[in-house]
Amino acid sequence: MTLKIYGMSASRTSRNLWMAEELGIAYEHIPVKIADAASDPDIARLNPNLRIPVIEDDGVVITESMAINLYLAAKHGGPLAAGNAAEAGLMAQWSFWAVTDLEALSLTVLLHRLVLRGEARDAARAEAAEASLARPLAVLDKALARGDGWLVGGRFTVADLNVSAIVHWLAAARMDLSGVPNVADWVKRCRDRDAAKTAQKLP
Amino acid sequence: MTLKIYGMSASRTSRNLWMAEELGIAYEHIPVKIADAASDPDIARLNPNLRIPVIEDDGVVITESMAINLYLAAKHGGPLAAGNAAEAGLMAQWSFWAVTDLEALSLTVLLHRLVLRGEARDAARAEAAEASLARPLAVLDKALARGDGWLVGGRFTVADLNVSAIVHWLAAARMDLSGVPNVADWVKRCRDRDAAKTAQKLP
Repeated sequence: MTLKIYGMSASRTSRNLWMAEELGIAYEHIPVKIADAASDPDIARLNPNLRIPVIEDDGVVITESMAINLYLAAKHGGPLAAGNAAEAGLMAQWSFWAVTDLEALSLTVLLHRLVLRGEARDAARAEAAEASLARPLAVLDKALARGDGWLVGGRFTVADLNVSAIVHWLAAARMDLSGVPNVADWVKRCRDRDAAKTAQKLP
Repeated sequence: MTLKIYGMSASRTSRNLWMAEELGIAYEHIPVKIADAASDPDIARLNPNLRIPVIEDDGVVITESMAINLYLAAKHGGPLAAGNAAEAGLMAQWSFWAVTDLEALSLTVLLHRLVLRGEARDAARAEAAEASLARPLAVLDKALARGDGWLVGGRFTVADLNVSAIVHWLAAARMDLSGVPNVADWVKRCRDRDAAKTAQKLP
């Protein structure tokens, strides 16, 4: 049975679509919308949290976008996957770090600089989030400088994919990243990959 | 070189100490306090985020408590570790789910029901967090019912350890878990393990 990826591209599902494209594996995309997830019968059957993304892979059901990508990398191998236990640990580390230190703040910037319109948009909230992002972005910048422009193993891996999928929100919201030049360069290199572009064009 | 685990037991480091005890591996515990982490020379050298926990394992440095445990499980194997790619995916899934859906709310309950004293304690914040926890705890309860009392593979694994280390905060804060009886029973079974008790007694 083909891998099924549930969730519209303009959501965290984009990370998993990007991953599937990087791996060059066959998959079926079911673009369930964020707003429809709670009432969608497939989502109700597959994810008790009633949200996207979720994948169904020959009977294996996995939720949480970061975990899905670590699973797909480990299953299919290749340069994006860990070559040993240390690399796997670092790929998990960076994925957890992105979720705890970057994601909520970056989503605030995305919403209040780009997505929300009119009164719903709050520039002060975006500014506060940008100020709080200075410290984690500096950590990321230093890591990229030390790692020859990549997070793990001197090459593009699932760690770069998972973290840059979030930092891309900041780039899309035109946040000034000139103070963290390694981050600015890296997120562009990540997002310029053919697989990222293909995934972004999906419904 | 022996595994070194940096961080006081009364912190997220307890998860990693518990894991090392479960695996029965030799390790050195350096009980850096939360308040001292930002100025500790070892932490400055090992973790640019300037916080605990962090481990040093024969030259491999890993941060993020959940990632450390997934790394230790994968490296040392045994019943707590994944037996295949699907189990590894589910162990990562539950660990990410705990971080995104449980951890911040559970910490609020712990702080405002147990840790903070006097005016710093805010019962209304604890109550709001408890109300928000109803939905994820119901998801957890259903998963435990389906999984014969465990999250992955019908046995105690790193997934149970990582998630129950957070739910334990709720039990410690005496939150009423009678509405989620599978969760209440499971967190007790997890925390009654010798390795959990040994780790909790560490400085």
